Parts: sequence; C-alpha cells; structure tokens
Amino acid sequence: MGTQKYQAIREAAYEANMQLPALGLVIFTFGNVSAADRDAGVFAIKPSGVPYTELSPDKMVIVDFDGKVVAGDLRPSSDTLTHAVLYKHWAHIGGIVHTHSTYATAWAQSLRDIPIYGTTHADHNTLDIPCAPPMPDELIAGNYEYQTGFQIMNALAERNLTYEDMEMVLVGNHAPFTWGSTPAKAVYNSAVLESIAQMAYLTESINLRASRLKDSLIKKHYERKHGPDSYYGQ
Amino acid sequence: MGTQKYQAIREAAYEANMQLPALGLVIFTFGNVSAADRDAGVFAIKPSGVPYTELSPDKMVIVDFDGKVVAGDLRPSSDTLTHAVLYKHWAHIGGIVHTHSTYATAWAQSLRDIPIYGTTHADHNTLDIPCAPPMPDELIAGNYEYQTGFQIMNALAERNLTYEDMEMVLVGNHAPFTWGSTPAKAVYNSAVLESIAQMAYLTESINLRASRLKDSLIKKHYERKHGPDSYYGQ
Amino acid sequence: MGTQKYQAIREAAYEANMQLPALGLVIFTFGNVSAADRDAGVFAIKPSGVPYTELSPDKMVIVDFDGKVVAGDLRPSSDTLTHAVLYKHWAHIGGIVHTHSTYATAWAQSLRDIPIYGTTHADHNTLDIPCAPPMPDELIAGNYEYQTGFQIMNALAERNLTYEDMEMVLVGNHAPFTWGSTPAKAVYNSAVLESIAQMAYLTESINLRASRLKDSLIKKHYERKHGPDSYYGQ
Amino acid sequence: MGTQKYQAIREAAYEANMQLPALGLVIFTFGNVSAADRDAGVFAIKPSGVPYTELSPDKMVIVDFDGKVVAGDLRPSSDTLTHAVLYKHWAHIGGIVHTHSTYATAWAQSLRDIPIYGTTHADHNTLDIPCAPPMPDELIAGNYEYQTGFQIMNALAERNLTYEDMEMVLVGNHAPFTWGSTPAKAVYNSAVLESIAQMAYLTESINLRASRLKDSLIKKHYERKHGPDSYYGQ
Repeated sequence: MGTQKYQAIREAAYEANMQLPALGLVIFTFGNVSAADRDAGVFAIKPSGVPYTELSPDKMVIVDFDGKVVAGDLRPSSDTLTHAVLYKHWAHIGGIVHTHSTYATAWAQSLRDIPIYGTTHADHNTLDIPCAPPMPDELIAGNYEYQTGFQIMNALAERNLTYEDMEMVLVGNHAPFTWGSTPAKAVYNSAVLESIAQMAYLTESINLRASRLKDSLIKKHYERKHGPDSYYGQ
Repeated sequence: MGTQKYQAIREAAYEANMQLPALGLVIFTFGNVSAADRDAGVFAIKPSGVPYTELSPDKMVIVDFDGKVVAGDLRPSSDTLTHAVLYKHWAHIGGIVHTHSTYATAWAQSLRDIPIYGTTHADHNTLDIPCAPPMPDELIAGNYEYQTGFQIMNALAERNLTYEDMEMVLVGNHAPFTWGSTPAKAVYNSAVLESIAQMAYLTESINLRASRLKDSLIKKHYERKHGPDSYYGQ
Repeated sequence: MGTQKYQAIREAAYEANMQLPALGLVIFTFGNVSAADRDAGVFAIKPSGVPYTELSPDKMVIVDFDGKVVAGDLRPSSDTLTHAVLYKHWAHIGGIVHTHSTYATAWAQSLRDIPIYGTTHADHNTLDIPCAPPMPDELIAGNYEYQTGFQIMNALAERNLTYEDMEMVLVGNHAPFTWGSTPAKAVYNSAVLESIAQMAYLTESINLRASRLKDSLIKKHYERKHGPDSYYGQ
Repeated sequence: MGTQKYQAIREAAYEANMQLPALGLVIFTFGNVSAADRDAGVFAIKPSGVPYTELSPDKMVIVDFDGKVVAGDLRPSSDTLTHAVLYKHWAHIGGIVHTHSTYATAWAQSLRDIPIYGTTHADHNTLDIPCAPPMPDELIAGNYEYQTGFQIMNALAERNLTYEDMEMVLVGNHAPFTWGSTPAKAVYNSAVLESIAQMAYLTESINLRASRLKDSLIKKHYERKHGPDSYYGQ
C-alpha cells in the first residue's frame, strides 16, 4: 500500500540513481539521487551504502521534507537531511543529485569556483559555478548534513542567485550537488557539471591566462536555449 | 515522397550522427552532423535537442543552403545556419560536424591555435589548427549562427587556407567544427582533431618548450597520404 | 581433498582477482589479490604471470604465513612473501591487494604521501596516505619481497598508525598495497585509493596552494562512516 | 597455395592487429603489426589504410625482408619498409608494432626519453625509453620509411643497447615502435609502453623534481623477471 502510493517516485529515483554509474559519475556507493512528490510532501532516496547493482525501486526510502522516514525498510542515504532542507526551501525542484565525480570534486577540493570559459558552460548557466566555503567547525560538529543544505543555499544567496538561475554547486572540500525540475534533469546537470569541470581544468592547463567568456556570448548561448525567444529543442 | 526523395542523405546523416557518441565525442545532445545532397541543393541535419538514442533517419530535417526547412516535422539543430552558410560557400563538401569534444573544446576555450607537434597531425594537414577569435558583440547579438559560418571562413582566409587545405577549425570560446567530402569523412576529422588536441596538450605538459614539427617532416607525412605520389591506402 | 579443503579461499581469491581488471586497476598480469583462512593459517594467492582471462579458482596457490607453498600446481605470485609477512603480523586482515593502478603508482613514483584534500578521502581514513621510502640497497639485494612487508609495516609505525587505521600504503618508486578484513574489502580499498590519487593530482593542478582538509571535517566524515555513532550503511 | 603457405603468420598478424583497438592503442587505421616467418624470410603485415573492422587473415600482405611484396592483393602498410629493415638486421624478432598511442606519442612529440621512474618500467627494461631525434632533412626527402628503420637502430646503438635489451623506441615527433620475439609480445610491449608513458607524465606533474629509480631497484625488478634466477611467471 505504502509501496503503491509512492511507486512513481520510487521508480523515478531508482532510474535516476542507476544513471550515475552508467554515466561514469560514481563508483561503488559514492552518490545518491532523490525524487520528490510535491503533493505528498515526500521524496524517495537511495538507501545508505547499498551498491547500485543491488538497488531496486522498492528499496528506495520515502522521507518527508523534515527528514523523517515515512516508508521503507532501509536506512536512507546519510545525506538525506541535505536533500530535505533543499526540497523544503525550494518549492519547484523535483530531484537532487549528489556525486563525487572526479573533476567536479577536484574543483571542490581546490576551493575554487569554476570560471565560465566557454559556450558549453553558457548553454547551461551564465555564471561561474559557485564553490561554497567549508562551514564553521561548530556547525560541522552539529547537525552536519542539515547544515550542508544551508551552506548550499548561502552560496547562492551570497551571489544573488536563485536555485533556478544556478542548478549546481560545489560544496568546498567535499563534492557537487545538483538539482532540477525532475530527477532526470538533476542527473543531466551532474553530467554537464563534470564535463564543464574537466574542460575548465584543461583550459587553464593549456592557457594559464585564459579569460572568462565575454558577456555577449554568455547571453547569446544562454538565451538561445533558455530565453523567452529560445530556439533550441523541440 | 519527400521522405523517399531525401532518403540517402537522411540515412547518411543518421549514421554519421550515431558515430559521435560511439566515438566518445559527445554526451547527451552536444553535437550534430549534416549530410548534403548537392544536386538537390539541400542537406539533412539532426533535429535540435533530440537525444541520440531517439534518433532515426526519418527524424532528420531537410534544409536548403539558405537555411530554410524543406522537409521534416522537427525543428533542425540550432546550429543549422552555420551549416547552411558553409555548404553555400564551399562547393565540394558533403558533410559538416559540430561537437563539444573535451580536448578540442578546451583548446577553443583557451583561444589558441593547436600547434603542429607531430606526424599524427601532419598526416592530416600541414598547419596549426586555426582557432577563430570570438566575433564582435554586434554580430553575436544579431544573426549569430549565420555569422558563425563567416567566422569560420574568415579564420581560414586570414591564414590563406582553403577549406580543402584545412578541414577543421576551433571556434574561439565555443567548440570545433569539421567538414569533408562526406559526412563520414567529417566525423573522422572530428575524432582526429580530438586526438591531435589531446596529444598537443600532453606534449606541452611534458615539454614546456616543445617545438613545432619541422617542415620536411610535415611535407613528407602529408604528401605520403595526400600528395600526387601518395602511397597510403588502397 | 586439498582442493576442497581450501575451496572457500580459492574462490574468494579468484573472485577478488577478477575484480581488478573489471575495475580498470590492472592490465595484463600487473597485480594480485590473496585471501586468508585464519583457522588453517594459509592464504590463496594468484599464480605468477598468469593472465586474468586464464584464471580459475583451482589455479590459486595455497601458501602458509611463512611463504611456503602448501597446495597448488603453479608458482605463486612473485609478491607472495610480502603477503605472507603482512598476514603473519596483522592478525585481523583477510585479504591483500597489490596493483600498479595508474594514479596511485604515479604518486608512489613521486615519493610523496597523498595529502588529504577532501571528504572522499576522509570517508575512508583520517590521514595522508603514506608513501614508504625505498628500502636500503642491501635489503633490496637480499630477500626483497619479504622486506617489502616490513617496509610497509615501518611506514605505518613511523606515523603511529595501526593497519586498522590505514588500510592502504604506497611503496615508494613501486606501487600501492591495500588490505582489509576480506579480499573484497581490500579490492574496494584499491579502487578508492586510485580515485583519491586521481582527485588529489587534479586538486593540486587546479590550485597550486590547495590546503589539507581541516580537522573538523576529517573527523566528521570519518566518524559518520566508521565511528561508534556511525550512521552510514545498513 | 600462397595463402596456405603463409597461413600461420597471416593469422598471427591478424590477431595481433586486432589487439590494438581492443587495448585502446589505436583509432581508425593509426597503427600496424607484422608477424615474421624466419624460415621463409618474409613477414605478414596489415594492408594500408584498411579499418580494423574490415581486416581478416587473408587480407594481410606478405613481404620479404627487402620490402618486396611476395603475396597478397592489397598494398601493404606505408610503414612496411621500416618493418623490413628491422627484420633484416635483427635476427631474433618475430613481430613489430607501430601505434600512435596517446601518451607514448606525446613523449615522442616532446623529443624526450621517458625516464625510468618506477618498478613498472624496471619490470620490463633497465633504462630510459629512447627517443630517436628526427632524421636529417635529406633522409626525410629520400627513402623515408627505410631510413626510419636505421633511425631506430641508431637510437639503440648510441646508447649501447641491443634490440633485446630494449624492445621499444619513440621516433621523435612521430610515435612509438615496439618489437619482440612474437607479434603478441610486441603488442604487449606497446601496451606496457603506453602505461609507462602515462605514469611518467603523471609522476612529473605530481613532483617536478621526481628522480629516477635507483640502480639497486632497477636491477632487482628486472632480474626477478628476466635474470638467470628469475622467479616470475610459470
């Protein structure tokens, strides 16, 4: 019954989680995706520490936006409270992804924003990808995963960005989080971020003085995909 | 009827597009190939924003050399006007490819030509791969994709190259375009460019003072494959 | 009879060895895994120089903790004495892995410890991954593989680490060894080490002045997975 | 008849050629392997410019040690004369491989020998991998592929190495050649070289002042695999 009730988000979360190893974004259990049901006020998330090869839709754990387990036999991802905080504060997202993908994580470990160097980046957003600085020690020792949600929101707020302007953030010294209107879109954003992160690393290696993309090109590429007169897609 | 008429280029464009993910040159929808029918004055091109897994020959869009859609139910690639300009001005090309392949795009973002460091490069052409500088802001704000065609042609003209001398260009801050007598040859050129771009990056990392290949070797390798007395291939 | 007697460790060693090429950690015969039977005082190890495609459980060689072959028709891995020394001195490990995985080996060749730059590292241990300095020439000329076991143990002792604190070591100028309670855990550790090694390399490339993870984050990430109040996994 | 006569080397050359794309050492037609029949004084080599997917044993071309085609309908590899020279001068090799594998080619383009940084290298030979300097212009303009054979032999002679001491050479600005007692061994050497080349590149990136492996370790690792008292393999 509980299973049937949440069947759609269990399946969406399962499918999206399985995309992570298929896209080369995780090994072993290094990542998790959740899928929200806004009407029910809950999300389905990967169980903690379970390998992708052993996942199935019915193993997903159903959690409310305060982080309380509502259905499911397994313990949810240790990052569950971060997902809960973001769902609670961001009314229009339907999926969240956390990975330790190689290049994005290296930028996070470097404590640097990823500069916008080209149109691959500008096709998706118009600004450097923010790297949130590590949180103060007293918050780390406290409710860490809950605070990680606020750390992500603060990184956007400090740059005057909404979660719709920027669907990806690096948590400093840790790794990326991405989100989107659906779990599939959030996974797409994770793969795009990894690609942007690799290209930016190579760009600086090839030209130490590489400069950011100029505003006219940022605007053009972003708007042809996302502006009111966009002409990309069907 | 319209479908049968353009069947050959629909299939050629479809096959060539499917090579891009198979060769690791694109993820998601980051690229497009077109195939020209010179007699009919049209080309078949990938529909915009459609994942490779959902492509089929009949989804290709038929466009004339002024960029007008002639047949097909879907919207063509947002880069269609760039393809149209090049087909219109270059009488002997049969295929064009655009990708955001990792290493070639990193060079494009670095705004540097790719120096000719070895025979892998000289087997294919005799000069550095041109990186076209970003276009002026007023052109970007105007008919951007149309102007991209001229940006590519200008990059060749400034170096006194014909499109037959050099079948690949980096569009600065953006990504590579390649072309050839057939769509398959254009795809081949994209993969070769990516390989050359990776090797040139590594060469400079291993030897900061790496020097360009000397003229005698450039000439020898190019001519054994492409000269009047070539002895490569069957 | 001998075969049946050691069937469990033969199969465990076989399965774990086969994971090495599957995880991209070895080519050809560049690595080996062993699986210990503590009650019998022996371990099963890969035969020397046999390609992974030709392995089977019954080709594993059974060796005691002094390095003497107890059962099996083939010569054991040339690294067998290193495994024997570690099993003899470390009462609670059940598996050992040696690979020449690309990034971990590059750090070993660089004679540098791998700094702890992020939570991917801290999820697994709390300190830099030790790189044992090359052993003195007289030991190399002597019982080299036997001494390699002590070289590994000394690298831990010099940092006041137990083999349970740190389940991975780089042997300077050579390559990594990892271990764990089971052969599968030891293989897991090898893949984690390779991932950490690649990320640390990229981190320093992106930010020459990257700094180590702060203590509060190290403690938090390690303890949520391994502390008395851990909340990771099922 | 001619086909049956050379069946063994046709098949050996075919199998070895097919290993190149399987091991990630070539794309398209960027490489070739030959297999020698010492009694018949000939070798079988890949036909020029034929994709690996279209190869079969009967497409291999039979050539004598002066480079004359003895059997086969297709034109042999454009590098055939290089193979012929090496077979003619080196009495005990049975196979030769030429690739443009990424990392080895980058070192060749850098005009640097690959320093011996670790035991992965020392397991296979005891010295830096030689990079032969580009040949003088008058030789390039002449019988280039024939001279490439002498360029390789000279690189060994200048370092007082025999072709049995060192089974791999980088041809400066070009790419690697490897050889061995059999075509399979020559292919193995190509994959080992690519691995060594990647690790050496990473080693220098991680530690700008990385130093060569010390003599005692070189000797130990080489001799345990290849010395009179070797104890590696079966």
